[in-house]
Amino acid sequence: MKKSEFSEWFNELLVDAQIMDVRYPVKGFYVWFPFGFNLRNRTYNVLRSLLDTDHEEAYFPLLIPEHELLKESEHIKGFEDEVFWVTRGGSTTLDVPLALRPTSETAMYPMFSIWIRSHADLPLRLYQLVNTFRYETKHTRPLIRLREITSFLEAHTAHETWEDAKLQTEVAIKLYKEFYDGLGVPYVISRRPDWDKFPGADYTIAFDTLMPDGKSLQIGTIHHLGTKFAKTFDIMYEDRDGEQQYVNQTCYGVSERCIAALISVHGDDKGLILPPEVAPTQVVIIPIFKTAADDEALIEACEWVARELSEYRTTIDLADERPGAKYYKWERQGVPIRVEVGPRDLAEGSVTVARRDTGEKESVPRAQLSAHIAQLACDILANIAGKAHAFMLSKTNVIDKPEEAKGQHGMFKIAWCGSEDCGRTLEVLSDADILGEFEEASESFCPICNATTYVQALLARPY
Amino acid sequence: MKKSEFSEWFNELLVDAQIMDVRYPVKGFYVWFPFGFNLRNRTYNVLRSLLDTDHEEAYFPLLIPEHELLKESEHIKGFEDEVFWVTRGGSTTLDVPLALRPTSETAMYPMFSIWIRSHADLPLRLYQLVNTFRYETKHTRPLIRLREITSFLEAHTAHETWEDAKLQTEVAIKLYKEFYDGLGVPYVISRRPDWDKFPGADYTIAFDTLMPDGKSLQIGTIHHLGTKFAKTFDIMYEDRDGEQQYVNQTCYGVSERCIAALISVHGDDKGLILPPEVAPTQVVIIPIFKTAADDEALIEACEWVARELSEYRTTIDLADERPGAKYYKWERQGVPIRVEVGPRDLAEGSVTVARRDTGEKESVPRAQLSAHIAQLACDILANIAGKAHAFMLSKTNVIDKPEEAKGQHGMFKIAWCGSEDCGRTLEVLSDADILGEFEEASESFCPICNATTYVQALLARPY
Repeated sequence: MKKSEFSEWFNELLVDAQIMDVRYPVKGFYVWFPFGFNLRNRTYNVLRSLLDTDHEEAYFPLLIPEHELLKESEHIKGFEDEVFWVTRGGSTTLDVPLALRPTSETAMYPMFSIWIRSHADLPLRLYQLVNTFRYETKHTRPLIRLREITSFLEAHTAHETWEDAKLQTEVAIKLYKEFYDGLGVPYVISRRPDWDKFPGADYTIAFDTLMPDGKSLQIGTIHHLGTKFAKTFDIMYEDRDGEQQYVNQTCYGVSERCIAALISVHGDDKGLILPPEVAPTQVVIIPIFKTAADDEALIEACEWVARELSEYRTTIDLADERPGAKYYKWERQGVPIRVEVGPRDLAEGSVTVARRDTGEKESVPRAQLSAHIAQLACDILANIAGKAHAFMLSKTNVIDKPEEAKGQHGMFKIAWCGSEDCGRTLEVLSDADILGEFEEASESFCPICNATTYVQALLARPY
Repeated sequence: MKKSEFSEWFNELLVDAQIMDVRYPVKGFYVWFPFGFNLRNRTYNVLRSLLDTDHEEAYFPLLIPEHELLKESEHIKGFEDEVFWVTRGGSTTLDVPLALRPTSETAMYPMFSIWIRSHADLPLRLYQLVNTFRYETKHTRPLIRLREITSFLEAHTAHETWEDAKLQTEVAIKLYKEFYDGLGVPYVISRRPDWDKFPGADYTIAFDTLMPDGKSLQIGTIHHLGTKFAKTFDIMYEDRDGEQQYVNQTCYGVSERCIAALISVHGDDKGLILPPEVAPTQVVIIPIFKTAADDEALIEACEWVARELSEYRTTIDLADERPGAKYYKWERQGVPIRVEVGPRDLAEGSVTVARRDTGEKESVPRAQLSAHIAQLACDILANIAGKAHAFMLSKTNVIDKPEEAKGQHGMFKIAWCGSEDCGRTLEVLSDADILGEFEEASESFCPICNATTYVQALLARPY
């Protein structure tokens, strides 16, 4: 498995590390192996616990009647080519075709219209973790471009004012920062150009990361919906002066691309490298049997280690295999820390601790084990996060002319006046897409029209 | 809300207690309110933790290609009238229609055929918690008869021998017993008659409870699949002698009917009564303000209570409402325990503790509060479970002639020779269905053909 050949590495890793099985007999649909789903659950539990501080979880139906989906014209234009339609029940043709949710605005907002009556009902902050569907005609790829997105955590909020909704987008940005920082996944935050914003949104803020092959991956989006959907779905509240007003809304979501990013930015030629917080097994304990006489004492020592580290998810591997085979297996699955106990460790009252991320091994006296592991867990996250950030930084270039990006890997920052015309020209000349824009403190000149600007465009080739 | 008028009570309760909203604009599809979904999550977490001891969670796609769904002829006969079909993606007609899983055998077993190679891969024990779909043409009802079953926890296992699979069905029975015992939901376990078993199964064991209106509700099923699906999907393993053998399989599942049962058997005219383990709020703390002078001391006392009971899920209700209005609201949502703190409690160094299940109130010295609440939580479960069991027992009658069940509410036990002919006659004469059968130690006579038998049929009118 060579990470330098990323596409093959990714596909092999998914199977070898038991993340996803690509052999399901329908294009674009994949199976989560138990190990992968365990990692998925732990990762989403981190995100959930961040949301749970002021959001509530709910559940809205998968199937959306055609007339609701078609209500908001901009929105449906963005999705109509990608919607799966249920048209039959048993042998009956349905009166109203039902869409498999591509996203849940049109399932939720008819209910918001019933639920929201007064300013006292606001803000409303809900989320759900659901499967959503896109009839992708492009090349599909597990975790990245799927026809069944199995794990879309979508939040939807409603507020009194446009400004309140804007503040909520900032809360969401902070929340996703915390989520990805905890996973050591680097990101760049930008505002999508108008032609690439969420269909129906006032504006879209996106998180993108850089994959090992130099392509960018969108790993989270946050949309200010203004009153667009409120007007379509008639979501009004009585304000503090007794007047009826449309609510201002936001929505934001993360899909299993968070797992794609997590495994891609940290993994190496040996397999996965997982941040300790989400690793299904955090510490694997392996006895190094030499002579049968030691066996029982070694197993006892391993059990002592497991008890000593009872606050971690540990596994003692007693399988009838050589230690090397065990190392290989657990390294492939990204277990952050390995504790080995051999006869010499036993004699010295110590254990051997190996890190997955650096491969370093050291002897640790038993009395210091617990403190050592606690420190190591922090160090590992800091190290893999640092490496990942350094990689992304090394591949992010400030350029003056769009042609400099041509044929190059990575992300590119370039001045841009902000007009669609110049933006489209930048894209053609760089052979890359404008992911988004952000403001800089210093003035520069649009390389196309030469206008002065504070805006920088972020160019990349996205997945 | 009169529980004696069960159907209306149930519908009102779902909205008033914020479990489910029935106003979604497609028949048979409902919305989980956040409170209801919280209760749902807590309930399923109990079931999950029981399964997690020796099952692994995975996830298989929602959409099943027509050719896989049609492979097992008995199975599809049982489902073909109830399957929703996706036939379009965007504006394209799909080459192969895709079924929304009615259950996941045909999604999972093609993968099992790839995954299982040797006896070392067995037993395989997986589960998933997913949405499944039935095109119900009967009257739909939230939590009970849905077109989108939002919360189907389905387990699927594979074993070397028929006997091993039978042992697994017994493990599953034990597991579901523990689950429902923990919720105080009574059940009767029986073997479904052959004409009502799961399509494709060797036999089906079912859990049924009795609803307040005297109708039965199936709340769990366990199927021994023998080698039927293994032969269809070619799931073979190399046995210990190097021979290729078909695996023996089981599957078992619970849907959100567990929530329907939970709220229906325990609730009363005031609303929900929840077992403490799954109640979103376990203890609500309410200050009883009399004079403004006491206010601060009362709030401090409430905060002391919350700290003292920090191992429970507590809420201090400081809303600007009269205590009576608060009692009413929290009673409706089934909060098991209410702690009131008024000026007299303050003066006496005590608090007033009220139970939701009996309405009893008593004064408890602060020093004894924590121990008192721990005891109360046990007592409440025991009391509501006891009441529910007593109700079901009082409605379960042993009868000699099927006509005795006619026009009566409840469950009926009657001797039966076991033949389909006599079974069908029993059903006609009693105007009820045979839910299932079980063996008794003592001999009796089939009331239809007079043959001697040890089998008893269980008659009821099911939802």
